[in-house]
Amino acid sequence: MFESTMMNMPLTIDILIQRAQTVSSHVEVVSRQADRSLHRSTYGKVAERALQLSRALLAGGIKKGDRIATLMWNHSSHLEAYLGIPMAGAVIHTLNLRLHPDEIAYIAEDAKDRWLLIDEVLLPLFDAFKGKYPFEKVIVVDSTKALTEGRVDYEALLKAAPKDTPLPELKETDALGSCYTSGTTGRPKGVVYSHRSTLLHSVVSALPDSLQLSFTDCLMAVVPMFHVNAWGLPYTALLVGAKQVLPGPFLDPTSLLDLMEEEKVTVAAGVPTIWMGMREALDAKPRNLKARMVVGGSAAPEQLIRDFDRHGLELIHAWGMTETSPIGLVAKLSPEAKGKSLDEQYHMRAKQGLPPPFVQVRVCNDSGEVPNDGKTSGEIQIRAPWVTQSYASNDSKDRWTKDGYFRTGDIATRCPLGYVQINDRIADLIKSGGEWIASQQLENALMGHPAVREAAVIGVPHEKWSERPLAAIVLKPDMKASADELRAFIAPQFANLWLPDAFVYLDTIPRTSAGKFKKTELREMFKDWKWEK
Amino acid sequence: MFESTMMNMPLTIDILIQRAQTVSSHVEVVSRQADRSLHRSTYGKVAERALQLSRALLAGGIKKGDRIATLMWNHSSHLEAYLGIPMAGAVIHTLNLRLHPDEIAYIAEDAKDRWLLIDEVLLPLFDAFKGKYPFEKVIVVDSTKALTEGRVDYEALLKAAPKDTPLPELKETDALGSCYTSGTTGRPKGVVYSHRSTLLHSVVSALPDSLQLSFTDCLMAVVPMFHVNAWGLPYTALLVGAKQVLPGPFLDPTSLLDLMEEEKVTVAAGVPTIWMGMREALDAKPRNLKARMVVGGSAAPEQLIRDFDRHGLELIHAWGMTETSPIGLVAKLSPEAKGKSLDEQYHMRAKQGLPPPFVQVRVCNDSGEVPNDGKTSGEIQIRAPWVTQSYASNDSKDRWTKDGYFRTGDIATRCPLGYVQINDRIADLIKSGGEWIASQQLENALMGHPAVREAAVIGVPHEKWSERPLAAIVLKPDMKASADELRAFIAPQFANLWLPDAFVYLDTIPRTSAGKFKKTELREMFKDWKWEK
Repeated sequence: MFESTMMNMPLTIDILIQRAQTVSSHVEVVSRQADRSLHRSTYGKVAERALQLSRALLAGGIKKGDRIATLMWNHSSHLEAYLGIPMAGAVIHTLNLRLHPDEIAYIAEDAKDRWLLIDEVLLPLFDAFKGKYPFEKVIVVDSTKALTEGRVDYEALLKAAPKDTPLPELKETDALGSCYTSGTTGRPKGVVYSHRSTLLHSVVSALPDSLQLSFTDCLMAVVPMFHVNAWGLPYTALLVGAKQVLPGPFLDPTSLLDLMEEEKVTVAAGVPTIWMGMREALDAKPRNLKARMVVGGSAAPEQLIRDFDRHGLELIHAWGMTETSPIGLVAKLSPEAKGKSLDEQYHMRAKQGLPPPFVQVRVCNDSGEVPNDGKTSGEIQIRAPWVTQSYASNDSKDRWTKDGYFRTGDIATRCPLGYVQINDRIADLIKSGGEWIASQQLENALMGHPAVREAAVIGVPHEKWSERPLAAIVLKPDMKASADELRAFIAPQFANLWLPDAFVYLDTIPRTSAGKFKKTELREMFKDWKWEK
Repeated sequence: MFESTMMNMPLTIDILIQRAQTVSSHVEVVSRQADRSLHRSTYGKVAERALQLSRALLAGGIKKGDRIATLMWNHSSHLEAYLGIPMAGAVIHTLNLRLHPDEIAYIAEDAKDRWLLIDEVLLPLFDAFKGKYPFEKVIVVDSTKALTEGRVDYEALLKAAPKDTPLPELKETDALGSCYTSGTTGRPKGVVYSHRSTLLHSVVSALPDSLQLSFTDCLMAVVPMFHVNAWGLPYTALLVGAKQVLPGPFLDPTSLLDLMEEEKVTVAAGVPTIWMGMREALDAKPRNLKARMVVGGSAAPEQLIRDFDRHGLELIHAWGMTETSPIGLVAKLSPEAKGKSLDEQYHMRAKQGLPPPFVQVRVCNDSGEVPNDGKTSGEIQIRAPWVTQSYASNDSKDRWTKDGYFRTGDIATRCPLGYVQINDRIADLIKSGGEWIASQQLENALMGHPAVREAAVIGVPHEKWSERPLAAIVLKPDMKASADELRAFIAPQFANLWLPDAFVYLDTIPRTSAGKFKKTELREMFKDWKWEK
């Protein structure tokens, strides 16, 4: 047999550490702290402290594969945990601080987390569930007050770490981190990323047709580091040597816009809700910004993309899930799409997009793969080195096809240029007569109305039709739009049957911890709705 | 043990085939044929034909790991071989048509190539060595004339291939291709790339801080597909879905510039000699171009980078070797470098640059790693998933350090911003008195003179000094520069001791098949040189 002569160099986290210690050691990491002040560090210092954390973990008896939980905002100590926990061979398990305390305890129990790293400002949250799951050790980050008995100060832990404990040898298939699905339906389920999947995901995320991240960029991940590892962006930025700005707990538009201006952010990433708030702030007081804004988590309305262009901000629509690390689709314009009219280009940019290299995406219905006609819909199925093939402690084999694709539960079409467009979650489709109505398409159309801030459409039981669509609307401050006006506004885009029969006006739409509309709660609110005869 | 739940998806060539058949199936591949006409294909067609080639190989008894040689210019059939041979589990071995026929036979024998794919126009070359190595089968590509007995027409081979032969399952560590070092010293040595190394190299080559290759680009690899796989660019372009323009045998400036204009090339790649010829053509007749020009293989003089800027062409300096797949360093400007004066930026761009992600580069002398002071020199040592850890059939263990870095034989310094600058090959250093003089530094300075087209500096034996530098100069057409003038021109940049004692004027400087100065031949020419007393 004729063998390759290539070096056997595993794709493990120490590749990131090595870069942080050499070519990128001077690159800045700027964090907004709990007292609003800015903390400045560098990749070199972050790497050094990360290795101290690794050695502290090993000295404390943490073994390969053990889970270490974090309950933290986006800041440089969290970045240290991103590196230091896997460097010790352990698994970083980012707990979602927006979940119900009982749910946090459930997830920690499910993952059998041994230690917890927690921001001092989040201790009140911890107090709400600490009785329900016994961490072996609780380490408090950025502590300013005396610690309760049994708790450990993070800085003291680092300081006391031995200097020369050898770090374990890592295999690229070793577990690096774990995230739990946000659970729009059912209990949260764990996914475990490997060193290899994380490194491959990072490099592909940085490609020109993905986020195009360079060492000349300054990245601000607004998406929390407890949501699918902030879409892997802290690792991507480390890989390419881009400066990072971490906004801490302050995610209001003004705090974010100030950071963008002062730190010269060139790429920001977050969910549509964040950008919607920012749009209002910018409309009220325009600023001189030039950045790319990655939007994901849920679909960004086309109007949002158009509006941001006016402010010098290029929204890049991307799609993914906890199960997909998350990058699965990115809506950058291909040469063919660039050849279309400006309106059509906006339509393209509002779709979920094209699969990046290494990602294999297909849209299938019962007859197999659907044609690229922009009409026939099916479920998105996906395969990539960073897509999960199972859940950690949950048997949901029906989520994978026989040939190994993950079934996303998203219903989509694919246009002649190959762009995938999600119409709805399977669970959110509205069954009216013999027809399926896609709630997300109605929502996106409604959110194109200048008076509408948010719109969520659900199916509500109906005697004759089985279900009919009801639209829950949140208006922008001091603006109005009647049901008739909204219906007329979207009517040209849909069959009559699709138009919501009722419009209700709310102050806010319930959301999941990931910022997605919580349709289960909405459906519960309107389950006894009386349709006019 | 807590395990990763990620899919086990090997990094093999079928990832490229899958993309060529789906998202990129419409992307064009334009080849200049032997009769100068343009042949237009698409990735979809190339993939289809590549799979026919795979099945023809399997039907012909080719087994996993068998070597299939190619002796071809850059065109779409060669691209088919790049895909089809490894898809069959075999190893593509690109023979360098610029070598001496005896050397080609030696290399084919060393690799034990079974079949040969050859351009019809190269049959005369084949006739010169066919008696020296017996290929089992010779397949002629683009044949227009009746074939000699025993030779097979490529199109007939594809046509006769079975339609449904199952392709073998590939491991990512399987051998994909083999290249031989061009042998500036010693006999050529083989390096064997794996599927994994090729895929990883491709994705990193496309990063913003490497070549920044997008599906909106049109790539023209002028560097031959028989030179380190055209620096891996055909694979990189396939991975991202960039259009490819393949110039066939016509590498003169006018043919290349015509292609760039007509096909709207945005990225071209080649050795300095090619770009020097192009500079003359552009100076004589400017064109309206806008492209990035990757230059590697040997150092590009700073003046070349400055001159191309005037023509709207951004030269990007990169460094690598057959042993490194090749990408090892790229000279893109970091934020710190961008903060320097324009002159300093040009100095930076003329260095070999910074290591891309996954590449670990250090510069070491006997005392260990040299400081980043831009002065202390040492040998470049490199480690990456696409760097070789041995030669295929040659025991040269002294080329690797104990901790597994490849010793490149290049002498370099590293500046405070981390940029590596090669001063010379160890073998080309000139020992004068107790001092080492770096011939390449003198050459680059001399090539900054407006009258100098090429300059090569060698050490010539000297009674008193052991060696002294002699500069061989090729002037631009109708231009002059005396020895005194040239010495005065470079004097400000060097110690007196470094300045060449003699200048000789040649019509051409002997080159290796890779376009590098063949210093061994120059030294032979001047070995009996009589220094003036």
